[in-house]
Amino acid sequence: MQVFNSVNKMQEWCRDYKMQGKKIGLVPTMGYLHEGHLSLVKEAVKSCDIVVVSIFVNPIQFGVGEDFDDYPRDISRDTNLLEKENVHAVFAPSIKEMYPEGYSAFVQIEGEITRKMCGASRPGHFKGVATVVSKLFNICQPDLAFFGQKDAQQVMVIEKMVKELNFSLEIIRCPIVREQDGMAMSSRNAYLNKEQRQQALILSQALNRAEDEIINGERNIKKVRETMHELINESPQAEVDYIIICNALDLSDLQEIRGKVLIALAVKIGNIRLIDNLQVEV
Amino acid sequence: MQVFNSVNKMQEWCRDYKMQGKKIGLVPTMGYLHEGHLSLVKEAVKSCDIVVVSIFVNPIQFGVGEDFDDYPRDISRDTNLLEKENVHAVFAPSIKEMYPEGYSAFVQIEGEITRKMCGASRPGHFKGVATVVSKLFNICQPDLAFFGQKDAQQVMVIEKMVKELNFSLEIIRCPIVREQDGMAMSSRNAYLNKEQRQQALILSQALNRAEDEIINGERNIKKVRETMHELINESPQAEVDYIIICNALDLSDLQEIRGKVLIALAVKIGNIRLIDNLQVEV
Repeated sequence: MQVFNSVNKMQEWCRDYKMQGKKIGLVPTMGYLHEGHLSLVKEAVKSCDIVVVSIFVNPIQFGVGEDFDDYPRDISRDTNLLEKENVHAVFAPSIKEMYPEGYSAFVQIEGEITRKMCGASRPGHFKGVATVVSKLFNICQPDLAFFGQKDAQQVMVIEKMVKELNFSLEIIRCPIVREQDGMAMSSRNAYLNKEQRQQALILSQALNRAEDEIINGERNIKKVRETMHELINESPQAEVDYIIICNALDLSDLQEIRGKVLIALAVKIGNIRLIDNLQVEV
Repeated sequence: MQVFNSVNKMQEWCRDYKMQGKKIGLVPTMGYLHEGHLSLVKEAVKSCDIVVVSIFVNPIQFGVGEDFDDYPRDISRDTNLLEKENVHAVFAPSIKEMYPEGYSAFVQIEGEITRKMCGASRPGHFKGVATVVSKLFNICQPDLAFFGQKDAQQVMVIEKMVKELNFSLEIIRCPIVREQDGMAMSSRNAYLNKEQRQQALILSQALNRAEDEIINGERNIKKVRETMHELINESPQAEVDYIIICNALDLSDLQEIRGKVLIALAVKIGNIRLIDNLQVEV
């Protein structure tokens, strides 16, 4: 397995394989890998000739006062894990390599899809995501790029970007990987102390409660959201950022629960903002 | 020569040649081709295996009240000209094909480089340019893309975009092609009536005057600009939009004329806004 820090060398390496007709898979990550990431990697290894995993904590997708500095990092542990998965290359550039002095080129998906949910709580977040992902696509020229459904809004923004900017590649969405107790895997779970970890279960529990209600016939969005809110408020350290029930295809608002529905939420446990989601088809 | 209107078919066609290891050249145009465009095409034919010329009057780079509706179009004349140049494919998509309903993905180069000159007179113009050029790059996957120095600011914006977003291609700048009397070729020259055409000569004349002064030792930017202003004001129908003398490498301001200098101007002849420029090295 090769590790690249240089944009040019990574790009050249990928270009060579591309010219040989190899199918390149890219798994963009911010590192501190968990089973969720590794499920993407396994999927990529299964379906591609060459697999590149990028590890880059992207500063421009973090807002002022967010956890960029504290974001967990462990590149040697990550590369060990990836070597075991038979990944061909790791791309781990420095910030300066990705955003040299005077950098000013950005990609932005405008409109409702980036304005609501995490876009409302984290202004500029999806501009940072779209920009870094565009760069990674241009550097690695993948045929397939793998993203987790855990960041449901992110993967939709990227799918829209790929379609509208005509990137010559396909996005593969992979399902959320959960701990045994239902907690969605996330690098940010590393922030949680034991008590917070227990309280953080409330995210998946609220989603399951919502799903149960819908299966039992509830079609009123407001009622389901209220149930989720109440449940979460029972946890003393939990504070709802948003709970949304919307069209799973484009995040548009719904009058009632109908068709493919996304239930998504962001909850702060102490200072730690966690997200989770679930899709239901009615 | 093939003519494509479909993004997918154009992209597939280019992908096939790319996989065969062919060197693809792209010449993006808004059509109504003149010798300036054809000089780019000839350069592309000389240096590439496969040459694609795009013809697309890009609505999102025109502002409200600008000449999008009136912009001259003659696709059959254009395709005839390109056939004679041994171009391999013309890409002439519809607006709907490039910007389907709900479109919201944009590329923007922020900062001084897009704020001054044409960026000041035409807000949003370079966002439209960067977006359409990104799309064309992704669709045609060129190794080389050819742009004219006539749109000096545009080519610099695109070069910055290519570098910063890591597009895997090279921009080739081609020199301005001029009529015998010095007038820079432009599709917009078709708007000019006989008298306006005569008055439009003032653009290249003002540039030549500035160059002469600099060759004769003038290093004061303000003085050179004043000379140009005065000369242009002698033409009754000419109205200066901007005259700028700046660093030719990054459009940054200069204290005095020194190094590689760009002299650029935009002048309205009646309703018709024309641009021209010239580089001097001191």
